[in-house]
Amino acid sequence: MQTYLDCIPCLLTQALKAARAVTDDEDTHRRVLNAVAGMVPQLSLGLSPPEITQYGYRLIYQITGSSDPFHQAKVEANRAVLALYPHLKEVIAGAEDPLLTACKLAIAGNSIDLATNFGQMDIGDIIETALVSPLAVNGYQRFLSSISSARRILYLGDNAGEIVFDRLLIEEMRRVRELDIDFVVRERPIINDATRDDAVAVGMDRVARIVSNGSDAPATILSQCSPEMLGLFYAADVIIAKGQGNYESLDAEPANIFFFLRAKCPIVAGLLGVNVGDAVLKQ
Amino acid sequence: MQTYLDCIPCLLTQALKAARAVTDDEDTHRRVLNAVAGMVPQLSLGLSPPEITQYGYRLIYQITGSSDPFHQAKVEANRAVLALYPHLKEVIAGAEDPLLTACKLAIAGNSIDLATNFGQMDIGDIIETALVSPLAVNGYQRFLSSISSARRILYLGDNAGEIVFDRLLIEEMRRVRELDIDFVVRERPIINDATRDDAVAVGMDRVARIVSNGSDAPATILSQCSPEMLGLFYAADVIIAKGQGNYESLDAEPANIFFFLRAKCPIVAGLLGVNVGDAVLKQ
Repeated sequence: MQTYLDCIPCLLTQALKAARAVTDDEDTHRRVLNAVAGMVPQLSLGLSPPEITQYGYRLIYQITGSSDPFHQAKVEANRAVLALYPHLKEVIAGAEDPLLTACKLAIAGNSIDLATNFGQMDIGDIIETALVSPLAVNGYQRFLSSISSARRILYLGDNAGEIVFDRLLIEEMRRVRELDIDFVVRERPIINDATRDDAVAVGMDRVARIVSNGSDAPATILSQCSPEMLGLFYAADVIIAKGQGNYESLDAEPANIFFFLRAKCPIVAGLLGVNVGDAVLKQ
Repeated sequence: MQTYLDCIPCLLTQALKAARAVTDDEDTHRRVLNAVAGMVPQLSLGLSPPEITQYGYRLIYQITGSSDPFHQAKVEANRAVLALYPHLKEVIAGAEDPLLTACKLAIAGNSIDLATNFGQMDIGDIIETALVSPLAVNGYQRFLSSISSARRILYLGDNAGEIVFDRLLIEEMRRVRELDIDFVVRERPIINDATRDDAVAVGMDRVARIVSNGSDAPATILSQCSPEMLGLFYAADVIIAKGQGNYESLDAEPANIFFFLRAKCPIVAGLLGVNVGDAVLKQ
């Protein structure tokens, strides 16, 4: 999708949040905000929102001297959700439809997002709400049918912490049927998106092959991806794409993609025909 | 209060909203956003948020060619709330404590604000909620005591539509005791703030003397106010200041001011020690 003018104030809010995660120095916060505001007139709205964010982060890195503003937050998110892993495993195992429950939890996990206000929600509340709420866009039956005949599955991860939920969904998919799953992470840190370190920290390597996409965009921008990643993308029978960033960058791709996400802003919610906060499983 | 860095993305959102209220032309929206983003590096955070907004609006006026982007919205807000006037009058008359109810409604009316998302709320819902919700900061007893001995009251209005609620509060205050009340409006349009035209449209001239403050800030910035307004300000026994803008510009003034407002953003809510959306009556 293209960038909307509404995305620009949001970019400034994100930049401020990232600067504050790196340092308490208010001069640095101000310099980051000035620099990101300064790039606004040059921004092409033909770029997708995650590409715009990527440009913003380059300025943040340059000014703050940190190339991983949310490092600590990511470590903590992984640890916090990993502590819930045994409980979540039981919830899934005890559910009437364990795979549907694993899907709902994987979408709930997408609430852990430091780019938006969703990151401030309590994980326990997120889980409880997800289990009792319907999917606002419900592509579950199509997903079930797609994976029942799939051999190669590409799973595009999103955020640290959230990837524990992804691991649970992968385990549930593989419990039903042996599957070859590649789990894709960002090449370098951006926002709180998961990298290889995060994936290893939550034991993803035990259930899937971890692959970097070769890019530091908070999304899957194919023109930035490595040849390895592109090969997997075009060979996959089913692609699971987590989060708004992956949706914003892949919504127009003619592949068999299932988007698992929480709608986190009015623009994306409007495009999907849902309310902000809704859970979406969309082919 | 000073401006916080968090106010800057909000300023861009407001600018975009104002540009869209004037025209559907997306190039104009973009030019407004670019111009407001372009002024960010020069902004002094020592200014109050409404002063920053005032600078932003000058750019909006210049680029869009409209000096009253929300004219139509203001006319409609006045009309919509005026239609509820007889009902609200009955609610107040039938209340256990009519003055407290009139105060709560006057604060509820502050929800009509096109600068924030509060403007999208349904007026009926706003009223119902206000009547059953407590004041998060409750200076009502002090207010009661202050006005019981006051002679001269200066009432600083805020938004169109909201001023119908202000009229009801003024009527209730004057029902209890004869009072000399000046109702202050902005000199020229800014956001959806009430000007003399709005005040006359809702019949404010029947219950108070309408005075312009001489400024087009969405607030009461004393250094911009007319000598007449300053005379009234310093002679008043009690000042009623509606809305965040008036709070942001007068919070440090050593006068007998009662702020009636809804906390509409995390910054102001934090300074007041309340949650966003809470009703505040603070001396």
